[in-house]
Amino acid sequence: MRRRLRLSGEAENPGEIRPGGRTARTRESVCRSTLQVLAESGYAELTVERVAERSGVHKSTIYRRWGGIDGLVVDALAFAVDDDWEPDLSGNVEANLMEFARMALASFADPVYGPTHTAVVAAAFQSDRAVDAVHRFFADRFGRTSTIITRAIENGELPKNTDPEAVIRALMAPIYFRLFISRQSVTDVDLEQAVQAALAAAMAGVFENQERR
Amino acid sequence: MRRRLRLSGEAENPGEIRPGGRTARTRESVCRSTLQVLAESGYAELTVERVAERSGVHKSTIYRRWGGIDGLVVDALAFAVDDDWEPDLSGNVEANLMEFARMALASFADPVYGPTHTAVVAAAFQSDRAVDAVHRFFADRFGRTSTIITRAIENGELPKNTDPEAVIRALMAPIYFRLFISRQSVTDVDLEQAVQAALAAAMAGVFENQERR
Repeated sequence: MRRRLRLSGEAENPGEIRPGGRTARTRESVCRSTLQVLAESGYAELTVERVAERSGVHKSTIYRRWGGIDGLVVDALAFAVDDDWEPDLSGNVEANLMEFARMALASFADPVYGPTHTAVVAAAFQSDRAVDAVHRFFADRFGRTSTIITRAIENGELPKNTDPEAVIRALMAPIYFRLFISRQSVTDVDLEQAVQAALAAAMAGVFENQERR
Repeated sequence: MRRRLRLSGEAENPGEIRPGGRTARTRESVCRSTLQVLAESGYAELTVERVAERSGVHKSTIYRRWGGIDGLVVDALAFAVDDDWEPDLSGNVEANLMEFARMALASFADPVYGPTHTAVVAAAFQSDRAVDAVHRFFADRFGRTSTIITRAIENGELPKNTDPEAVIRALMAPIYFRLFISRQSVTDVDLEQAVQAALAAAMAGVFENQERR
């Protein structure tokens, strides 16, 4: 079965609901509150106090479990796109990357996840805390998505020493560039071009890891 | 002679000073004031009134010649990196792109141009006016830099229908991604990889313009 990115606004498949004890309910409440504050008021207004008030979870619990704003933001972003998400590995590397790129682009249009992600990228221009959140977010995303590349290496579709993160970064960079830097629209043709460009470079050995040679 | 990116902080070569009438002096004064306000206070504080006050140029003149904030920002960014700048075309396409990438990266470290450019990218998260400025800035930059690619096509280094902007965007996207999105450092190795990746994709025909086929 294909796994897809489940966004926070969507209903869960009833068969998939996990029992979820008190800890899970606390997390859900805190993450939802974090996302709401971010989407409504932006990163500048996000404080542990506001999340505590909105979620009804005591702020000492939030500090203990999330450490503070950074931890909250990273976990809320992970929560919004489904903690259990793993990339689809059912096709060839090209199909799997295209599927991932389409999902990533769609997620920016999600009413909660989109503005939250944008708020964090915007906040990194002003706040070192937000920079930390951004670092941790991309480390997590790149880590999960890298399995598309490691699988392709195993299958002989890409050179042996290819650095998975470099391929994913090459794929995502033009998409982020259009969305957040040059502020141009992103079409399916652009996604296709990004996939083809990343693969052509990987196949030419541009992303071969020097250290592992 | 190699042309290089002259940044606003640098002294001009005395032999290169153009006579510059009153119009040129007005422009210089207005652009410098715009850059100063942007670097000191950010885009949110940039008004025609403040630029008029700082430069001593009447605001009706500024509105007439620049149209408003957008026009000011685009012209100030062009002024800061030398209006006459053209890319170095003296090497092969790889050498010319690497030279350009190095210059672009160095410009982000410039005390006036760097913060100004960053302020405009940051402002686009909040202001449609800034989005317009960003569009016009990249149209100008991509237009100028594209000659590296058109020259390479003429020389038979790249496929005939290669879209120059697509190659430049592929080159710059990972650099902007690291600087402004994932907030990672950019080394010479990263620049080299970006050049190689953009060229590998171009050589594989990924950036061939469909319409012109």
